[in-house]
Amino acid sequence: MSGVFITFEGVEGAGKTTVLDLLYEKMIQEGYKNLLRTREPGGIEIAEQIRNIILNPSHTKMDGRTEALLYAAARRQHLVEKVIPALEEGKIVLCDRFVDSSLAYQGYARGLGIDEVWLINQFAIQNRMPDLTLFLDLPPERGLERITNNGDREQNRLDLEALSFHKKVYEAYMMLMEQFPERIKRVNADQPVEQVVEDCYQALSDKVRK
Amino acid sequence: MSGVFITFEGVEGAGKTTVLDLLYEKMIQEGYKNLLRTREPGGIEIAEQIRNIILNPSHTKMDGRTEALLYAAARRQHLVEKVIPALEEGKIVLCDRFVDSSLAYQGYARGLGIDEVWLINQFAIQNRMPDLTLFLDLPPERGLERITNNGDREQNRLDLEALSFHKKVYEAYMMLMEQFPERIKRVNADQPVEQVVEDCYQALSDKVRK
Repeated sequence: MSGVFITFEGVEGAGKTTVLDLLYEKMIQEGYKNLLRTREPGGIEIAEQIRNIILNPSHTKMDGRTEALLYAAARRQHLVEKVIPALEEGKIVLCDRFVDSSLAYQGYARGLGIDEVWLINQFAIQNRMPDLTLFLDLPPERGLERITNNGDREQNRLDLEALSFHKKVYEAYMMLMEQFPERIKRVNADQPVEQVVEDCYQALSDKVRK
Repeated sequence: MSGVFITFEGVEGAGKTTVLDLLYEKMIQEGYKNLLRTREPGGIEIAEQIRNIILNPSHTKMDGRTEALLYAAARRQHLVEKVIPALEEGKIVLCDRFVDSSLAYQGYARGLGIDEVWLINQFAIQNRMPDLTLFLDLPPERGLERITNNGDREQNRLDLEALSFHKKVYEAYMMLMEQFPERIKRVNADQPVEQVVEDCYQALSDKVRK
């Protein structure tokens, strides 16, 4: 495959959506072509329907293992219908969340075990790991603050988790950065958004070509 | 756990639903109490929604691995919300399809590999295997014949698969019976339904108590 697969990770409120919006625009302006910006359900009908089940706030009885399997299922469908075809066309794929989210959220924060969650995700992705992952590093307290202050953002089931949960997610990302220092690069997200975008742009510039 | 977990398997059209209806009635008449009859989504809202995604005939792009992960997710939720609580109350649980279906349909017939599909199902069930599995043995040709002749039965996405697919499913069940001779018992389903019910009743009688 000739494309480049770049994923973005972070705690709730780290600003992934805004940063990706601006980064995408900047890359276009700087002359990059063949970009695909996506997030995991990504307009793929089957994956969107799976995501609706996961994020429905009324599903309070959802078991942690059910959730992990549903994320893996949505990931699989999005990967085969959208990401892999784009990579085969030589595109730069910018994806909001991928396998690290499941390792951090379900594997570690929900206590299912990173190794076990890795197993079902390996079934889903069959070694199609990102070429680069940018971790937007914002302390979980600051992330929750941002969510609470943002009246426009509709709260979903994950936003409603306690701070202790979000702290564990953050801890897991720290562990994953240690485990995959080559793949995962840290970007300080606790600075003005223009600077975060600039730092992301620099971090990916040696992986991609115009 | 003091209950008994019994599952029913077979190709499409093998008559599981009818046989389970009659077997359940017979057991009640014979004085069995504490019965739970269920099938995998089993009225569990989250699992029903997952099943709707799987069986929607318009989802022609569904990848085999997505499908396998969705079945495992629905299985997990049904198991923890319905089956395990019933077993903890000492009930006899009669369940229409369980893990063997995934091994046969996705693992073997779809070619994903029985071992790989077993891995994600182990994540889902955590060793909670049935105490007994009754395989309603009907050649796949006869099963498809029955489906085609039954105008009342709404055809789902799996019914529309080619005969060659259903033959592979049958082959897989044969392999599973060889692999788990203690757990899986064969019942001849190509005889009058009253006799099939009687044979099922006999096959489970030494596993359960009134």
